[in-house]
Amino acid sequence: MFAVIGERINGMFNDVKKAIQTKDKKIVQDLAIRQTECGAAFLDVNVGPASAEPAEAMAWLIETIQEVCKTPISLDSPRLSVVEAGLKVCKNKALINSTLGDPEKLDKYFPLALQHNASIIALTIDKRGIPGDVNRRVEIAATIIEYAMNYEFPIENLYIDPIVNPVKFSQPQAANVLEAIRQFKMFSDPPPHTVVGLSNLSQGTLHRELINRTFVTMAITAGLDTAILDPMDTEMMDEIISTEILLNKSIYSDSYLEATKKTFKVK
Amino acid sequence: MFAVIGERINGMFNDVKKAIQTKDKKIVQDLAIRQTECGAAFLDVNVGPASAEPAEAMAWLIETIQEVCKTPISLDSPRLSVVEAGLKVCKNKALINSTLGDPEKLDKYFPLALQHNASIIALTIDKRGIPGDVNRRVEIAATIIEYAMNYEFPIENLYIDPIVNPVKFSQPQAANVLEAIRQFKMFSDPPPHTVVGLSNLSQGTLHRELINRTFVTMAITAGLDTAILDPMDTEMMDEIISTEILLNKSIYSDSYLEATKKTFKVK
Repeated sequence: MFAVIGERINGMFNDVKKAIQTKDKKIVQDLAIRQTECGAAFLDVNVGPASAEPAEAMAWLIETIQEVCKTPISLDSPRLSVVEAGLKVCKNKALINSTLGDPEKLDKYFPLALQHNASIIALTIDKRGIPGDVNRRVEIAATIIEYAMNYEFPIENLYIDPIVNPVKFSQPQAANVLEAIRQFKMFSDPPPHTVVGLSNLSQGTLHRELINRTFVTMAITAGLDTAILDPMDTEMMDEIISTEILLNKSIYSDSYLEATKKTFKVK
Repeated sequence: MFAVIGERINGMFNDVKKAIQTKDKKIVQDLAIRQTECGAAFLDVNVGPASAEPAEAMAWLIETIQEVCKTPISLDSPRLSVVEAGLKVCKNKALINSTLGDPEKLDKYFPLALQHNASIIALTIDKRGIPGDVNRRVEIAATIIEYAMNYEFPIENLYIDPIVNPVKFSQPQAANVLEAIRQFKMFSDPPPHTVVGLSNLSQGTLHRELINRTFVTMAITAGLDTAILDPMDTEMMDEIISTEILLNKSIYSDSYLEATKKTFKVK
């Protein structure tokens, strides 16, 4: 089944920024509960620019969330110290978001993830930067999988992100991401998970929700099984649920939308 | 570019049935103009159960449409005599909708289409009936292409339809159709066109528009380049236009929806 990583607990959003700065638990807990009730299987937690003490803020956000729900946490930070601070307080299996597909990084992050029995998102970015074609995405993904195998890292805990660029600035990359997802799924059996940060795609466009929901449907068709997105976008969630029905991954009934939504519960 | 075949001029709909029976040109002409302005590249014309003289009704419908627009006609009838009556009055290149992928039928329809320089939709149905898996769809498509080649029928005039079943009654077939489309596109270079009758998919469901627009996005991602659908469903058309942008088949601009819609003109 497709797994949604709820994107809203991020210090880039003003409400969350303010909550971090004033230690306002309610805003954070409401977003945790609402996203879970709308279908988030993970809650992404990103301190963003909201705090000068990001490790401390990360731990506070996670502890605040865990007071009201058990939804697994996606620890979203480029800084290892912030991720480690999060791992220390996560009660359930965490998702590290993210490492790069660069040997030096992989040598740090795979052992860390193994130590905490955490899953991990690995971006297809290496020292040469963000890939501009399918081949480099596949090449970096191959390096990631090679390192995972060397570390005996469970493939079901690995999420590979082919990097979605804004369609406004690099239009050909959207189709390249779809093809990369198709190819990632042929790497191994079972294959690695695939994940994208969806909202980056529509940055600066006038039809953000339309572009986001169209692309997520296209990407699931190509083999995407996870995305960081806003589960409170009902039209998008309805389309994701319908896509799963049409791929025969969940069972059709006349009330399939309602039936699926009933499974979205805070635990 | 994706081509929409507008489905609304069909005697199954009450307004059209009444128009055929009372020879009310305005209803037919309005539907022709509105569908064209909403993006129909072809107008499907199906007498349906509206007339005891279907050949005559087909000719009347086409002549009525041609008084107000030049949008090419899709001649939708299982009866050869009705198709022939339509071909006689079509002023522009017609699309025959449809033949079966059965040798006896192909031997009749390919020469007819060649004689009139018409395009043709061939359904992947043979004497054994509607296929229940991918392999039989591909097998029948191979027969269709073999006959096309033997008749030196131009591949760009050939549209293969893998047959969409109602998801409510045969849920696994939707994913089979997607895989069949992918495989049809690998048959030849250039490949045949692919087409589906979309609305069949959502028959009897409670969320018809959602299911239709989700599936057409999925199918275009898999390689679909034509569908019979209702172009007046704005949400679906917006999603189709966005899908083409994200596949890099048309050029992004902030006003890409409006820019595309400006090209939808009655000629």
